[in-house]
Amino acid sequence: MNPTFDIVTADEHDRLQALYEPLAQAVRGLLDASIRTGVDADAIAEATTAIEAVTESLRREQRDGPMAMIHGETGRPVVWANPVVGLRNAVAPPLTIHHSDDGTCWSEFTLGAAYEGPLGWVHGGICALVLDHVLGEVASGALAQPRYTGTITCRYLRGTPLGPLRAEASVDRIEGVKTFARGRLIDADGVTVEAEGVFITPAWARDAG
Amino acid sequence: MNPTFDIVTADEHDRLQALYEPLAQAVRGLLDASIRTGVDADAIAEATTAIEAVTESLRREQRDGPMAMIHGETGRPVVWANPVVGLRNAVAPPLTIHHSDDGTCWSEFTLGAAYEGPLGWVHGGICALVLDHVLGEVASGALAQPRYTGTITCRYLRGTPLGPLRAEASVDRIEGVKTFARGRLIDADGVTVEAEGVFITPAWARDAG
Repeated sequence: MNPTFDIVTADEHDRLQALYEPLAQAVRGLLDASIRTGVDADAIAEATTAIEAVTESLRREQRDGPMAMIHGETGRPVVWANPVVGLRNAVAPPLTIHHSDDGTCWSEFTLGAAYEGPLGWVHGGICALVLDHVLGEVASGALAQPRYTGTITCRYLRGTPLGPLRAEASVDRIEGVKTFARGRLIDADGVTVEAEGVFITPAWARDAG
Repeated sequence: MNPTFDIVTADEHDRLQALYEPLAQAVRGLLDASIRTGVDADAIAEATTAIEAVTESLRREQRDGPMAMIHGETGRPVVWANPVVGLRNAVAPPLTIHHSDDGTCWSEFTLGAAYEGPLGWVHGGICALVLDHVLGEVASGALAQPRYTGTITCRYLRGTPLGPLRAEASVDRIEGVKTFARGRLIDADGVTVEAEGVFITPAWARDAG
């Protein structure tokens, strides 16, 4: 698939971000509150009805296909719907990824009740989701080049506690269409999960060099 | 960590499920609508305010720690907050996991806009999240025995399209505290991602046999 992108100006990007970010942030808050609430049955029913009314109002105009936007200044895709970093997606914590000059990337973020597997611990698959994303980010030069996951291995050294965490990733080497990346998830006491992955340049992007 | 669980009767379980499931389902609908909406700035602002009011109403009573419940009849943990299968967690699609008599497990489910990575495709990390979960389910005998991910490797054979999907997993072998499981993600045309993992019985559960 070689999608066609809309190019947005920096100003339009910022206007849209100011518009949509508070909405997704509100949905994130609701998502957390709905998991942890202990209010009575009437209050739950009332909340459910109110949420359905808001959904109805947002559904008056809905995009059907993917959101394909490129930032006019940076040339990078605007990945607002992404389930790890997407400002518009309440599934995403969301992570803000920082790219260092040395080609590594890192993010500091907090995972709450919505990401819990074993009681008090982050779901192992959520660790894999975050690591796949940061490895993919570093392999693709901050998403400037499309690179899809070929293989990823995660080694869980110990449980990852809910709360503040850090993820880091770097590129090991590049061999043709394969980019080898590694990374780790870190809590206050050190590394909890290590990952290594191979990311592939898709056929449709190989000519774009 | 060896958590203490509340035991719920089958009736109480069903009452709570009937109470909370529609709420989470409403939040899921809102989450999807909020990613794809194109309504104007006033409508977005109005929706944001309305959502914050609902959150406020649910926050009047909030559980702080993890939800530790065991079903009195099945003896299995009630994992309503889980980000893959949790009925109360709008991050979860949620998957319903079916356990066959031969010890395998499978699930059929649909992934929409909230799980998109590359345009039109499921995020590679979401594939890993789902596979980690179904491998963990099969390794733990439907969560009857605690088994935490030790290592997981996912091989992406091709992109996984958004839409209806199937996940399957089975146990390869058990060696002491290590359970070896494998599984795959499948679309209408066949396998898209293969996974294999080693799941570990935590020290606190080893005596419980």
